[in-house]
Amino acid sequence: MAVLPLASLTGVLFSTDAARAIFSAQACVQGMLDFEAALARAQARTGVIPAACAEPIARCCNADRIDFDGLAAAAAPAGNLAIPLVKQLTDLVAGEDADAARYVHWGATSQDAIDTGLVLQLRTALDLIDAELVALTAALALQARRHRDTAMAGRTWMQQALPLTFGLKVAGWLDGLQRHQDRLAAVRTRVLALQFGGAAGTLASLGGQGLRVAQALAGELRLDLPDIPWHTQRDRMAEAAAVFGMLTGSLGKIARDVSLLMQTEVGEAAEPAAAGKGGSSTMPHKRNPVACAAVLAAATRVPPLVSVMLSGMVQEHERALGGWQAEWDTLPEIVLLTAGALQQVRTIAEGLGVDERRMQSNLDVTNGLLLAEAVTLALGPTLGRMQAHLAMEAACRRAVQDGRQLRDVLLEDADVTAHLSTEQIDSLLEPAHYLGQAGEFVDRVLETHRRRT
Amino acid sequence: MAVLPLASLTGVLFSTDAARAIFSAQACVQGMLDFEAALARAQARTGVIPAACAEPIARCCNADRIDFDGLAAAAAPAGNLAIPLVKQLTDLVAGEDADAARYVHWGATSQDAIDTGLVLQLRTALDLIDAELVALTAALALQARRHRDTAMAGRTWMQQALPLTFGLKVAGWLDGLQRHQDRLAAVRTRVLALQFGGAAGTLASLGGQGLRVAQALAGELRLDLPDIPWHTQRDRMAEAAAVFGMLTGSLGKIARDVSLLMQTEVGEAAEPAAAGKGGSSTMPHKRNPVACAAVLAAATRVPPLVSVMLSGMVQEHERALGGWQAEWDTLPEIVLLTAGALQQVRTIAEGLGVDERRMQSNLDVTNGLLLAEAVTLALGPTLGRMQAHLAMEAACRRAVQDGRQLRDVLLEDADVTAHLSTEQIDSLLEPAHYLGQAGEFVDRVLETHRRRT
Amino acid sequence: MAVLPLASLTGVLFSTDAARAIFSAQACVQGMLDFEAALARAQARTGVIPAACAEPIARCCNADRIDFDGLAAAAAPAGNLAIPLVKQLTDLVAGEDADAARYVHWGATSQDAIDTGLVLQLRTALDLIDAELVALTAALALQARRHRDTAMAGRTWMQQALPLTFGLKVAGWLDGLQRHQDRLAAVRTRVLALQFGGAAGTLASLGGQGLRVAQALAGELRLDLPDIPWHTQRDRMAEAAAVFGMLTGSLGKIARDVSLLMQTEVGEAAEPAAAGKGGSSTMPHKRNPVACAAVLAAATRVPPLVSVMLSGMVQEHERALGGWQAEWDTLPEIVLLTAGALQQVRTIAEGLGVDERRMQSNLDVTNGLLLAEAVTLALGPTLGRMQAHLAMEAACRRAVQDGRQLRDVLLEDADVTAHLSTEQIDSLLEPAHYLGQAGEFVDRVLETHRRRT
Amino acid sequence: MAVLPLASLTGVLFSTDAARAIFSAQACVQGMLDFEAALARAQARTGVIPAACAEPIARCCNADRIDFDGLAAAAAPAGNLAIPLVKQLTDLVAGEDADAARYVHWGATSQDAIDTGLVLQLRTALDLIDAELVALTAALALQARRHRDTAMAGRTWMQQALPLTFGLKVAGWLDGLQRHQDRLAAVRTRVLALQFGGAAGTLASLGGQGLRVAQALAGELRLDLPDIPWHTQRDRMAEAAAVFGMLTGSLGKIARDVSLLMQTEVGEAAEPAAAGKGGSSTMPHKRNPVACAAVLAAATRVPPLVSVMLSGMVQEHERALGGWQAEWDTLPEIVLLTAGALQQVRTIAEGLGVDERRMQSNLDVTNGLLLAEAVTLALGPTLGRMQAHLAMEAACRRAVQDGRQLRDVLLEDADVTAHLSTEQIDSLLEPAHYLGQAGEFVDRVLETHRRRT
Repeated sequence: MAVLPLASLTGVLFSTDAARAIFSAQACVQGMLDFEAALARAQARTGVIPAACAEPIARCCNADRIDFDGLAAAAAPAGNLAIPLVKQLTDLVAGEDADAARYVHWGATSQDAIDTGLVLQLRTALDLIDAELVALTAALALQARRHRDTAMAGRTWMQQALPLTFGLKVAGWLDGLQRHQDRLAAVRTRVLALQFGGAAGTLASLGGQGLRVAQALAGELRLDLPDIPWHTQRDRMAEAAAVFGMLTGSLGKIARDVSLLMQTEVGEAAEPAAAGKGGSSTMPHKRNPVACAAVLAAATRVPPLVSVMLSGMVQEHERALGGWQAEWDTLPEIVLLTAGALQQVRTIAEGLGVDERRMQSNLDVTNGLLLAEAVTLALGPTLGRMQAHLAMEAACRRAVQDGRQLRDVLLEDADVTAHLSTEQIDSLLEPAHYLGQAGEFVDRVLETHRRRT
Repeated sequence: MAVLPLASLTGVLFSTDAARAIFSAQACVQGMLDFEAALARAQARTGVIPAACAEPIARCCNADRIDFDGLAAAAAPAGNLAIPLVKQLTDLVAGEDADAARYVHWGATSQDAIDTGLVLQLRTALDLIDAELVALTAALALQARRHRDTAMAGRTWMQQALPLTFGLKVAGWLDGLQRHQDRLAAVRTRVLALQFGGAAGTLASLGGQGLRVAQALAGELRLDLPDIPWHTQRDRMAEAAAVFGMLTGSLGKIARDVSLLMQTEVGEAAEPAAAGKGGSSTMPHKRNPVACAAVLAAATRVPPLVSVMLSGMVQEHERALGGWQAEWDTLPEIVLLTAGALQQVRTIAEGLGVDERRMQSNLDVTNGLLLAEAVTLALGPTLGRMQAHLAMEAACRRAVQDGRQLRDVLLEDADVTAHLSTEQIDSLLEPAHYLGQAGEFVDRVLETHRRRT
Repeated sequence: MAVLPLASLTGVLFSTDAARAIFSAQACVQGMLDFEAALARAQARTGVIPAACAEPIARCCNADRIDFDGLAAAAAPAGNLAIPLVKQLTDLVAGEDADAARYVHWGATSQDAIDTGLVLQLRTALDLIDAELVALTAALALQARRHRDTAMAGRTWMQQALPLTFGLKVAGWLDGLQRHQDRLAAVRTRVLALQFGGAAGTLASLGGQGLRVAQALAGELRLDLPDIPWHTQRDRMAEAAAVFGMLTGSLGKIARDVSLLMQTEVGEAAEPAAAGKGGSSTMPHKRNPVACAAVLAAATRVPPLVSVMLSGMVQEHERALGGWQAEWDTLPEIVLLTAGALQQVRTIAEGLGVDERRMQSNLDVTNGLLLAEAVTLALGPTLGRMQAHLAMEAACRRAVQDGRQLRDVLLEDADVTAHLSTEQIDSLLEPAHYLGQAGEFVDRVLETHRRRT
Repeated sequence: MAVLPLASLTGVLFSTDAARAIFSAQACVQGMLDFEAALARAQARTGVIPAACAEPIARCCNADRIDFDGLAAAAAPAGNLAIPLVKQLTDLVAGEDADAARYVHWGATSQDAIDTGLVLQLRTALDLIDAELVALTAALALQARRHRDTAMAGRTWMQQALPLTFGLKVAGWLDGLQRHQDRLAAVRTRVLALQFGGAAGTLASLGGQGLRVAQALAGELRLDLPDIPWHTQRDRMAEAAAVFGMLTGSLGKIARDVSLLMQTEVGEAAEPAAAGKGGSSTMPHKRNPVACAAVLAAATRVPPLVSVMLSGMVQEHERALGGWQAEWDTLPEIVLLTAGALQQVRTIAEGLGVDERRMQSNLDVTNGLLLAEAVTLALGPTLGRMQAHLAMEAACRRAVQDGRQLRDVLLEDADVTAHLSTEQIDSLLEPAHYLGQAGEFVDRVLETHRRRT
């Protein structure tokens, strides 16, 4: 084939078969052909073209009948795919019905076919992503419920800080994804809109019938009829891209957390293992977080691609010179990367290995320093917040310097023992006693999840 | 002052006084202090701290009393502004009421103050931007109505293509902005949320009172109480940034159009003139589109800044190392640039000079080629779409080569005159006859505008 | 084929056959196989593996013998292409020579094969781009020489400002490209370096023979031997990406200029026409700047892709989790877009239509205002720079308001005629008299071009 | 002051006093004034203006005499800083010498002053960054030498992989920085170039004297005289930005490594402690990697800012509308962030705490799996690479499943003991025996460092 795929082999690592199918060359062409078929039917229905012409056109609107190499060769000089595609389509129709061939692409412009075709692809992509999100949020809800009270070290600045629960961590992930579901629902209300304006957005080519045809066409395609053609107002596409970008960011956060937890020295969680997965070519003992890597790569790549979409919005007059064309490969790439990251995180969420014993033992590695805040706060009401802070800072420093348990240092400190008994200190230093509202927060997020499903 | 401002002088070109006031050092500190004051009151109200301690704390929560140089000097080693600010605040309170000083910042963490303070700033910024958008959309609605039927050249690929109306062009601008108003309303429902979680998001420092305090605190600040603290789930901030980015993109599109129309050789529209505005240091005749330039600069700068916000979402565990800190200057910068671009476009929209005569005369520069499509379509039903297209392509080529009026070429073409009379040809070549649904589209957008106000 | 190409159809608009061939799946795999073949030979030569094993391995290092579908299917769980490729290669070699199969990929790690393979692809890409740049700079040098003295309007802020020559404009384009040639030469000195470190960069797997093998391997591949493996030091790749990004920016500037000159109302320059090129599907008279559009799209897309490469530099320890993987599709995409833009601009430069009469007539549209500076400066020595500026500002305002020639306004102005005669005024208002050093600047750039070739 | 600083307080966390001083409002204005002073002198020297006029102008070119509030207020409508600055300067000179006032800014345009002023600021910034890099590379060279043979775990995919030395890790950091020194030297040869072209780049305002003045002016400012003015060819600025971006990426890699090593559960390295540094407001035991956080924030922010600079290159004709203006705050911000990150990494490098005992003990946490490759390779020559790999994969799996030492598993494995003795196995499992060429690689990098200093 003359059309060599761009980086298709490595692309397989970052997307999914289903997403690639939506944005294949085949599907891209079929999207435009679906527009052309619906246009013919809408125009027949509104009497703009002869009724008998619609079906011969619609029958030819089948990507299997298109010569893709010819299309690619003609697209470069033409400047877009729609011009040579309409030529091929017209020839195909002419082969079946010379009358009908006169009415192919009647009154439309290239951008109408390209943009509306893309909207149709996006609708399928949104279905796919919504379905994945339902599965992923369900998996996370399960993990959050299961680990509602599983204590582990909370880490700030990549240092152990305070105890929390693994359920709280997972509920945080879930919480963000639920907001993305709302955003995606809002994207649908705006992006699933027909683009149909003719060359300059006036539909002048259809005389006074433009709006009636537009309405019928939107109906054929089950798309919204916008107030006005939107060919150079690209906020719809930009919004879709941006929301995919936010979603990928949240997925990246999950992958970052999992990969940190999966470090050899931490070992609290692990991507699910599978045959042939994550092995090293030279180190047989390795189990690499390959899913996390793919997600983190996506989270590195997508934000600048969103930037392309936003920069591309600055379009000239009634058809852009550069900004629109910049979208063509970029938006599909964003969707592919988002869908790929989503599937990877779903796999992680559904099969995540959680090592509760390791979480427990890691809670002990600071010799009790992790609970220093608990003691500080217990001292606060009597010593004052700042003084308590300074006293504990000193105690912690001593514990670190001498490699001793914080408990032992505190028991020797008259300032402390003046206010707290040994039992109180022991209780304060128990991680499970210092989880605050972690359980309630998990419950609240799960309740929102329950209400949504 | 030890703290030298970053590029403050040129910054004045790209933002507004009002926006700068929202994100000044003063206002940034006041945002955090408002959090601290509300926290004290909420904790007094819920009995977590002594009732008498709230007001002494609240009284000191005044940025005028803060030593900014000291704050800046201490912030770098501390890693954020909240740590030294809480120290200064505690000292201030201690000077008034030693008891109250014990309860400053009680149970909170730096990020609670920083994030919630930022949310408060964002609320003011959203008010400002919404108000500007109301004014801008009103100005555009006026222009669209006024120029509903003002014919001008539509331009695709930066070439004259077909006639349209200036009202249609403006209605397209307006249409996009109205969607941004909806998006900004949705942003408010998510971003105006309290962040309050303590060091690891458990509120453990408040024992079992965490949620009650959080609820009271949200009430004090008139913010939503989220299901769960969101310190490392940054989708709220990313969404705000992305919507500002989309808005700036749409503003950039307007500026691009205006600057193209304002070219010496086009001259159809012009930024409003003002004393000292747009003059050249060396060319007295120049009137530079300085507002457009500022908007286009913003539309170049903001998309990559949105990319920073999206990349920054990949945060580690319970407090990020880099991703959160990357937001601090970036989000304010996005808001400043957006607000600046918005004000510039508002000025343009309110005072836009429109030269209808020039629009009319530019419609003539192609010797009628601009109406070629009208003739093509009139020929289509009898000749077939593709044959009509080829015939007109040939006629246009002749007209271009010989520098003649298309009308004259057509009248000599037997294929054409077989189907069209001279009167029909003349009527087809009249731009005002070939505006399609432009008026209806304008009406639809204006109707939406009317319904919203 | 299971591996659906990403956006291959539209990709054809933005790259070239030659560039796509360098980064095809086939070539990507061959790059890694070239590494493996050279590794076997280098190890045989240094006695690390039996001499007889090298050629059986090398013979199998042929991408035609690889099962690409199998490779793609295995790559996703493995996390990269090299792991399954080495497996396939080992099987192929085993089918020919069981002994040799033991020594496939001996002592190397996946990243060694992937990175060095990419370096080999980049070398070919740099050859391609250098050759295109030689042709493009030659074409621009020709245009600059031809139009050294062709006067046209200089435009600042998209307004006519002062006369210049078309040669000066072209020389400016050429000047920037010549610096890119230097940068690309510098890139070669750094990026054409072997990556060979084994799993952790120590070459421990080769005992004490690591450096000797590395030296021999670099020799086999005609690459530099770096001081140290660079697997997680990505500045080489980032630099290549950044220089391609700068080059694309300069190409975008040329396309922006050409597209502005090509506007219907300006008409001073035009992309070369070709059969099927730039036609509109509905407007037969249109000639769209499709080459400019492709270049401007590239100039919109590449900068954020460079941002991906820079962000990806923040890599973890001895093999990155996300940052490296983010490069895999990004760097090829940058090269493809750069090569595509380069070829488009070369086509423009070689066939650019220049309409000198239109340039001349556009010099007249401001009624002489374009020469206001010339008069201002002539008045400066006697009136003072600021007073001359103010006087001319007033004269220009009058000329604009009354739609009169500046000449006529000046001749009525006693302040002016006190200092300048009618002949002096006429001479000052002649564009060809006010071209300053334009010719000398062109000569200087051409001299640099001559010296380089 | 009317000019509120943008985010100055948080900015202090990410830059340095020295860098802020270079890009202060004061220094920005002084840069332009230095251009104006040098211009007057060059023109006096070449006889273009009266000799007596130079010094009165030069004396007034002092930023202390400028009204900054007035400048800021006038800049917004003017569209840049130079126009109102030249007005103020002219008034100042007029106050001293009315004759000289006529010759302020003679023949120059705003962009000449702005661009050349920025080049002067960049020169100082490059001096600063070069000096910091000398200090940083010296510190890293010291650490690499000191830890040439300090064994630690090498980590790929964030999993322990193989032993290496800390010296090798540091040498890798150093190696990249040395290449950046070369790149910065190359940047100097291109970016330190005078911009002087007058309004349209022809220097027409200077009659035939343009080039002579330009040469004298370049001499005054010790800048290169370029072949041609470069006002809309922005590759020089883009290159500087890109190299700063690459440098920041390499610094981010160091910070990522250090922050990973500094995790509570790893504990192998630590940022230097200092009073008030890295403390938590609520957790007294915390020592936060605040330097790493600042560097990682910079490495998140700078790449998209480089993207702004590259996007901005697409400039219109002889003065850009948006692209140039987008540079004004962006390039200084890049330099500030780079300088800030550089100083932070220097502090880390000079005071890095290295815990060799912890490195040693972490080498043991995998029960010997870390040396699996060593055993695999020892088995390879007899078993074949792939079979050895599979055998060790099985052994490692058993060791992991049963929580046993790899040594013990191997000693029970007849396939292994058939080929390796107990002594051989013990020796193979000793990390210090499996460091390959780590020491040689360190030596090579240090030798390059030695040669450069």
